[in-house]
Amino acid sequence: MSNNQLKIILIDEQPERFEILDNALREQGHEIVARISASEDIIATVERTQPDIIIVDLESPGRDTLESMQAINRDRPRPIVMFTNDGDSATIERAVKSGVSAYIVDGLSPERIRPILDVAMHRFREYQQLRNELEQTRMQLTERKLIEKAKGILMKKRGLDEDQAYQSLRKMAMDRNLKLSELARSIIAAAELLE
Amino acid sequence: MSNNQLKIILIDEQPERFEILDNALREQGHEIVARISASEDIIATVERTQPDIIIVDLESPGRDTLESMQAINRDRPRPIVMFTNDGDSATIERAVKSGVSAYIVDGLSPERIRPILDVAMHRFREYQQLRNELEQTRMQLTERKLIEKAKGILMKKRGLDEDQAYQSLRKMAMDRNLKLSELARSIIAAAELLE
Repeated sequence: MSNNQLKIILIDEQPERFEILDNALREQGHEIVARISASEDIIATVERTQPDIIIVDLESPGRDTLESMQAINRDRPRPIVMFTNDGDSATIERAVKSGVSAYIVDGLSPERIRPILDVAMHRFREYQQLRNELEQTRMQLTERKLIEKAKGILMKKRGLDEDQAYQSLRKMAMDRNLKLSELARSIIAAAELLE
Repeated sequence: MSNNQLKIILIDEQPERFEILDNALREQGHEIVARISASEDIIATVERTQPDIIIVDLESPGRDTLESMQAINRDRPRPIVMFTNDGDSATIERAVKSGVSAYIVDGLSPERIRPILDVAMHRFREYQQLRNELEQTRMQLTERKLIEKAKGILMKKRGLDEDQAYQSLRKMAMDRNLKLSELARSIIAAAELLE
């Protein structure tokens, strides 16, 4: 088991179901760092307790809860496991879009909790990896646009060819201890001022 | 329910469990277009029957099965639902990495099948969307590199500034009915020949 001793936020409202979850989680060595109801400030609780995973156990996740999950997924991504009795397709779609890693309908039983957490953790990592890759590729694209634009400015202003312009950019960046894209941004701004 | 009448491939080996799945799926209006064992050629069956979703019901998914799932995920992506009794963390990790949209341990019961398929379909779409976005951004990055390089060649060979070079590229592409990146590729190849 790769996910030993997780710090867990539990969002729930049914005492008898809490018992099941609480026992199973403690037995597996996990720590419930906060237990709150759906009407409390979920995002602030995540901020404060920095959990490894969030478990939601609600009859049906309301709009506010799903919006909180979406905000967490955007700003402080964490695996989210949701146990509910709500098998409505529209709710499922909203939950998945909100970044819920596991949405389980009528499936809360003690012996299934461990593999469910495990699937959620692995799926979360997989998804985050793809998201990071997308973000990095987007950044490369943006930086490239800046660098190419700055290169074009140097080629024109100083009558350099592409290679010379690029070498000149690299040297300027090194001399100023700047990233190539930062230097490019300055050159573009300077050219706009002097035009 | 948004997923009416799915065409399903079922990979299973236990007759009594097949009964449960078969009944539940037919009741929901789905069609099992193929039923095979894990040792049969899964990829060829996907090719032939073009299913909407693949359901795997195995005691434990073997390495060959997971490799087939990975190949399907790479070349003919489809939602994959896996019912098993194997809650081993390493197997779960491999299954998630192989692109399995839902991995359910000890959770096969008729009334839960519908929401499980629903979650899997939505999760699959969500993941594919992210994957497509990544692919498109990567392509934009590659095309951008080609276009910038071709622009640099024109700037140097014809003494144009950046804007002129870009306009010239656009016009050439339009005249030849080519995508900008295709034309760029030709210009780069031509310049290499003439150097």
